[in-house]
Amino acid sequence: MKLTILFGGASFEHEISIVSAITLKQKLTQFELTFVFCDQDHTFYLVEASKMKAVTFSKGEHKKMPKLSLVNGAFSQKGLFGSSEYNGTVLNLIHGADGEDGSIAALLDFYSIKYIGPRIDASVFSYDKRYTKWLCNARGVKALQHEELNLKEHSNITLPYPIIVKPARLGSSIGVSVVKDESKLDYALDSAFEFDGSVIVEPFLDGVKEYNLAGFRANEKFYFSIVEEPQKEEFLDFEKKYMDFSRSEQVLKAEVSKELESKLRANFEKVYKNLFEGALIRCDFFVVNNEVYLNEINPIPGSMANYLFDDFQGSLEILINSLVHAKRAKVNYDYIHSISRAKGK
Amino acid sequence: MKLTILFGGASFEHEISIVSAITLKQKLTQFELTFVFCDQDHTFYLVEASKMKAVTFSKGEHKKMPKLSLVNGAFSQKGLFGSSEYNGTVLNLIHGADGEDGSIAALLDFYSIKYIGPRIDASVFSYDKRYTKWLCNARGVKALQHEELNLKEHSNITLPYPIIVKPARLGSSIGVSVVKDESKLDYALDSAFEFDGSVIVEPFLDGVKEYNLAGFRANEKFYFSIVEEPQKEEFLDFEKKYMDFSRSEQVLKAEVSKELESKLRANFEKVYKNLFEGALIRCDFFVVNNEVYLNEINPIPGSMANYLFDDFQGSLEILINSLVHAKRAKVNYDYIHSISRAKGK
Repeated sequence: MKLTILFGGASFEHEISIVSAITLKQKLTQFELTFVFCDQDHTFYLVEASKMKAVTFSKGEHKKMPKLSLVNGAFSQKGLFGSSEYNGTVLNLIHGADGEDGSIAALLDFYSIKYIGPRIDASVFSYDKRYTKWLCNARGVKALQHEELNLKEHSNITLPYPIIVKPARLGSSIGVSVVKDESKLDYALDSAFEFDGSVIVEPFLDGVKEYNLAGFRANEKFYFSIVEEPQKEEFLDFEKKYMDFSRSEQVLKAEVSKELESKLRANFEKVYKNLFEGALIRCDFFVVNNEVYLNEINPIPGSMANYLFDDFQGSLEILINSLVHAKRAKVNYDYIHSISRAKGK
Repeated sequence: MKLTILFGGASFEHEISIVSAITLKQKLTQFELTFVFCDQDHTFYLVEASKMKAVTFSKGEHKKMPKLSLVNGAFSQKGLFGSSEYNGTVLNLIHGADGEDGSIAALLDFYSIKYIGPRIDASVFSYDKRYTKWLCNARGVKALQHEELNLKEHSNITLPYPIIVKPARLGSSIGVSVVKDESKLDYALDSAFEFDGSVIVEPFLDGVKEYNLAGFRANEKFYFSIVEEPQKEEFLDFEKKYMDFSRSEQVLKAEVSKELESKLRANFEKVYKNLFEGALIRCDFFVVNNEVYLNEINPIPGSMANYLFDDFQGSLEILINSLVHAKRAKVNYDYIHSISRAKGK
């Protein structure tokens, strides 16, 4: 099965995406892989599998590789004697900006390329933590209380300390701080506003139980990973999350009751259905007093959360076979024709 | 001032967009205009101003015109001896799919082209009527009660008749029906589901007062049009709305009290702020028992609602001068460098 891994992007998670792509190269041995790198200036490059090493990109060696452009149905490489087309299904593996904000989804839809990844609307609801709250609210999924702050005008925070401060639109813990008392607030806000003009504040729940569940829907059926209880620290900072993106070892199933697993799955389904189709996502949940709260949606989880699936390659195949092209409206000129006729032209 | 009018698109409102573009050609006499047509197969064509007639497109004459492609900062025309670039600010005038669903926004952002129009997230909240309700709810703007139906599974409608049935993601009244009793429901649902797998149902308020207000925010200040009380019929069907898109005559200001005008503006601001920046939008409101309800957001109104502005060209100039490029994260390879150093490579 052919699959094009699209990675890189003009994103604070650019390096993480490279690590994810290298990890998937090792995991997807049954696939015929093509690697397309999106540089920070939004040029696409075709990368040979043998060059899929982190230093290739940090040293800028990719700039000597063939450039690709988007054409209908494919990435195209222009040569002296015509062009080659790479028309396999794309795995959108650009974490953060570009990949998760809806840009890449829109490009691939516009050029009629099938892809694994969130569509435009799903991207908006997962990329911006404020809109994830709206989604939860509309679909009856519990989420932690939050307050929204904007750079140029923000009121006082009314939540009691400790709180957690997060840029609205960044993943991988970038710009995130736990604030234990007001004396540390300004510094935390400065750090968060450095990355985004909008910030959200939530209660920080010390020692809360956290569970991750990945999955997707294909042919109207849900496919779930095992439930993982992630390694617990105050919160995972960027460096730790970074290492997390290179994970490829199957993890141990968390010790959760059947009842809790069902609850987690039911919440996952509420979030996913009629919105995230086409994507393999990971939902990170908190459990407080036996109630499930959605913490975060990762619509392009690090190395696609391969380590949570018993049969990762088989799962991806099911998802790929369920993908559809973006619908296009058929255009006719009935009104213009009828007006032209009425005018006798 | 240079401005590129981008119109057409693979949309049920393709013809309407052509009409809008022709109307703006007549209105924007102080601008140096370039016309770029997006065909239904997503090919871009450069159209000479003198060819800006509806029949050019209905007869397919555009297919002989120069093709354009997107490059960093511009639409580019390849010639035998190099390429010409059209790098003016773009006015996204593609109504409906492509233009209003976030696709064109994403493309222009990705290629670092400044444009008038909703950004990706604003598109999602205005294009899909379900998400407009979520926006209203989160920002304290009243909206009519609604129920959501999905094609493959939907429960009975509990709203009392008469109701109005609308595809979730179409504008210009396409697929919309007023249903006075249950006997007409199936036909209305079939019509709506023909266009979208999701449908919303709202109470139909006969004889409700309707007011339209257009505007934008530039340099942290709001600029409003006059308030219009649109011509009232049961609801405007496609053909009437179609004619509406060619409007260029300044309309009369509705007779509204200062108090109501302030209320309309306050609601507009709540909807717009920190979301629609960069776009000139028209909000259509209902007034019921002196309370303002948002009916619909038009993020790319027909012919840009030029007829509602005292000084349309001056207003557009203010907006254009306030536009910014999409932000791009700066990429560095600190982590990869540090790992490489640790490995002694």
